[in-house]
Amino acid sequence: MQIPLSVDFQKQSAIQQQVVQHLRRMIQEGALPPGSKLPSTRSLSEQLQVSRGSVVIAYHHLAAEGYLETQSATATFVSRTLPENFTQAKPVKAARPAPDCVAQEPEAFLSRVQPLQLFDPEQDQLGCDFRLGRAEKSFFPIKAWRRLIPECLGGAEHALSQYGDPAGYMPLRTAISHHILRARGVRCTPEQVIIVAGCQEGLNLISLVLVSPGAAVAVEDPCYQGAAGVFEAHHAQLVPIPLDDGGLDVDALAASHARLAYVTPSHQFPLGSTMPLERRKALLDWASKADAYVIEDDYDSDFRYERSPLPAVKSFDTAERVIYIGTFSKSIGAGLRMGYVIVPPQLAQASTAAKALINNGHPWLDQAVMAEFIRSGAFEKHLRVIRKHYLGRRDHLIAQLRLRLGPDCIVKGADSGMHLVVYLAGLGMPAHALQIKLKAMGVGVYALKESPARSFSRFPQDETILLLGYAGLTEQKISIAIARMAEVLHGRTQRPYN
Amino acid sequence: MQIPLSVDFQKQSAIQQQVVQHLRRMIQEGALPPGSKLPSTRSLSEQLQVSRGSVVIAYHHLAAEGYLETQSATATFVSRTLPENFTQAKPVKAARPAPDCVAQEPEAFLSRVQPLQLFDPEQDQLGCDFRLGRAEKSFFPIKAWRRLIPECLGGAEHALSQYGDPAGYMPLRTAISHHILRARGVRCTPEQVIIVAGCQEGLNLISLVLVSPGAAVAVEDPCYQGAAGVFEAHHAQLVPIPLDDGGLDVDALAASHARLAYVTPSHQFPLGSTMPLERRKALLDWASKADAYVIEDDYDSDFRYERSPLPAVKSFDTAERVIYIGTFSKSIGAGLRMGYVIVPPQLAQASTAAKALINNGHPWLDQAVMAEFIRSGAFEKHLRVIRKHYLGRRDHLIAQLRLRLGPDCIVKGADSGMHLVVYLAGLGMPAHALQIKLKAMGVGVYALKESPARSFSRFPQDETILLLGYAGLTEQKISIAIARMAEVLHGRTQRPYN
Repeated sequence: MQIPLSVDFQKQSAIQQQVVQHLRRMIQEGALPPGSKLPSTRSLSEQLQVSRGSVVIAYHHLAAEGYLETQSATATFVSRTLPENFTQAKPVKAARPAPDCVAQEPEAFLSRVQPLQLFDPEQDQLGCDFRLGRAEKSFFPIKAWRRLIPECLGGAEHALSQYGDPAGYMPLRTAISHHILRARGVRCTPEQVIIVAGCQEGLNLISLVLVSPGAAVAVEDPCYQGAAGVFEAHHAQLVPIPLDDGGLDVDALAASHARLAYVTPSHQFPLGSTMPLERRKALLDWASKADAYVIEDDYDSDFRYERSPLPAVKSFDTAERVIYIGTFSKSIGAGLRMGYVIVPPQLAQASTAAKALINNGHPWLDQAVMAEFIRSGAFEKHLRVIRKHYLGRRDHLIAQLRLRLGPDCIVKGADSGMHLVVYLAGLGMPAHALQIKLKAMGVGVYALKESPARSFSRFPQDETILLLGYAGLTEQKISIAIARMAEVLHGRTQRPYN
Repeated sequence: MQIPLSVDFQKQSAIQQQVVQHLRRMIQEGALPPGSKLPSTRSLSEQLQVSRGSVVIAYHHLAAEGYLETQSATATFVSRTLPENFTQAKPVKAARPAPDCVAQEPEAFLSRVQPLQLFDPEQDQLGCDFRLGRAEKSFFPIKAWRRLIPECLGGAEHALSQYGDPAGYMPLRTAISHHILRARGVRCTPEQVIIVAGCQEGLNLISLVLVSPGAAVAVEDPCYQGAAGVFEAHHAQLVPIPLDDGGLDVDALAASHARLAYVTPSHQFPLGSTMPLERRKALLDWASKADAYVIEDDYDSDFRYERSPLPAVKSFDTAERVIYIGTFSKSIGAGLRMGYVIVPPQLAQASTAAKALINNGHPWLDQAVMAEFIRSGAFEKHLRVIRKHYLGRRDHLIAQLRLRLGPDCIVKGADSGMHLVVYLAGLGMPAHALQIKLKAMGVGVYALKESPARSFSRFPQDETILLLGYAGLTEQKISIAIARMAEVLHGRTQRPYN
């Protein structure tokens, strides 16, 4: 099918904007009735002689507005239920008010960064919780800490009482530069390594350096809420880019006007895909051509189960366009609040200045302990041990899901990381309803919209997505929890989990 | 003397803007010749029927441009050397370029936050260093740390491995809320206390919540460079407010359009003045009337020598307009990177969200140790001991200055804190020249422009100001260093200090 549509290359407005406006009008006027199938992005892009990315972005935008429904990567339909006020197109996001010349009210800040899931002390009450990003507490290397802390405290009065280098303790930066080459193929000097309080501070640091107010920042849709929130806190304009099974759609990214892109190529958060090698290279090509930067958040890359890990995007970054963020929150413990950013050499000075302004450096003692933990080889040994345990838990979870829920239960995103995605399509209950029923039974499972993810578009399939973080649960608990899930889905007797 | 000047109250432009323009033109046209004395701010404000603050701001602005010279609080003259391009008035600060819709280059960030003194590993090479903010390393309570850390590590696997409340560990927030009432008269709930990585992170947190791009933020002139830098990093427009012996001029603040003011009332950084009680109340009145917030940075208030400490501005804050920032960097150690912000209740939710976005919380172990250190009473005991030592060092420094440099050496800003100010006016050498000569002899002293302070205006007297941080130096070292200073100033034999 060809639809009567053309674009005007002389016009000021972007190509995808024109496609959005034309299609929206055709739907509003009934020329494209509810339920009708649209041409594939590839065929429409050939018809219009525009990049496929522009069409992907336009479809995605209209889906976010409620005009289109995507049922697979190739099949897009006009929604059966159109948006209520369909005569007035709603923008994806309300325009930011113009900045005023006075300090803002806290409400302005909160409304800019919402929705943000904050810490809830009650979340620890569940007997069996598949919460995302939760590590196994008994794997914390407490013996090493008990030994290393007194060692590091010897003669430490100077380091503890004085200001240090805001970019971090040099022995730790050196240890990380050695580790990251072996583990992820990333070559860097210690001067390119900035010690931060976890991935989140890394994102904050980069925002301070690179995001000017109103700057377009491309993010995955859906993406990690802490990333979306911190970019918005710095007054960025977020540009959601659609995902497929290979992660971020680089064609769509190239069709946007963003010059900064935030990606999770090792294990997309939250959907779990791994970006293939070719696309990693396409991402780098885009960055070079667009004079842009890529933020590679490698938050749980320490856990890779299926084959040898793909090298980080940063490892191919000959043009120095990638900012790599790593964390010890998953591999050691989130209560440590420690991670690192590896910046291209041309960003090192600005990043150090930004870290000085953010908090003037990381606490010294934790850095000294971590430096010795890595340098001695204990960290790599620790990683090997917990990787084996997490692999066992993952395999057990997948086996239990297949055993209890049968072949209709589709599992994705399990090749790496600490969580996987269950698609409930054939199981007869929306994810959110399942979450509520299981919570009452002491089992925490997470629908997409209840997870620490930000979805910019609402697709019908979102309600079939269930996220399960398995790293913090024993195999015994996993068995009990999935049995409960099967009971709920199959309507059998339900009793609370204790 | 009356000068032929009037203001038009109907005009859109601010009163002080009109005064600036009129006076500048009169100077440029020769109506006010170089060296001529201007009326006092009080008499000009009476003549014009405007607030004195408006005249103070106007004079300060013209001094910053180089048209006026202030020789004391009451005597202002037309500069003997006028600015080179005096036909074109130079703004205090170049206007920010309009934000573009792409990510910025790191150079844009660096130029926005410069000049910022970063960590210099060589700064520790001096045998005798009066560097500001430097604590005595042997006073770090290392024995308590050696005892408390293993205690806190018992059963700590959960806290170390999991995410906690981004606002901080509740037992520490509770301990601080008790301590701050006894120490500074500040009443607050633990929920109002946010744990941060030092004063600097507190400023960053408040900037994220309250500073919208282009917002006017009032700062002391001169002020702490880390504060100026972080406000600028968040795209604030800084409004420098003049100081006198009582600190920030509240009349001048009231005449500005700022709705956020950063002050150091306990011990002005860098000039050391203490804000009197009446002015503290005037500051609160301004905040209430202007619907503004005051950031009270109480960075070294633990050390007060002359009389019982004035209660913090925050302690009178019935209208909930003050954000109080405290730090353990001076009282325990800067390498800990720990401090706290006490926010009004209406800012608590936004501040917690901001902390979640900045770095999602402070490392747990340090918080647990500090909570117990305060709760047990060990912190108050520690403060009493080091306060006595620092008092001894301060008294010794003042005595040595008087002994070696004679009555022409004026000392100010010594009532509290860890540094004092020496005015060299009668001693025949500019501060910067003295700094260079002494550095070659292994002694670190600091001219205003070489300190971590930001001066917005250049006054002739700036070159007579020498800043000496004495907390980290023994009395013996102080004696030797001041003897060297006397040798340099009196032209005697000079040999390096080892």
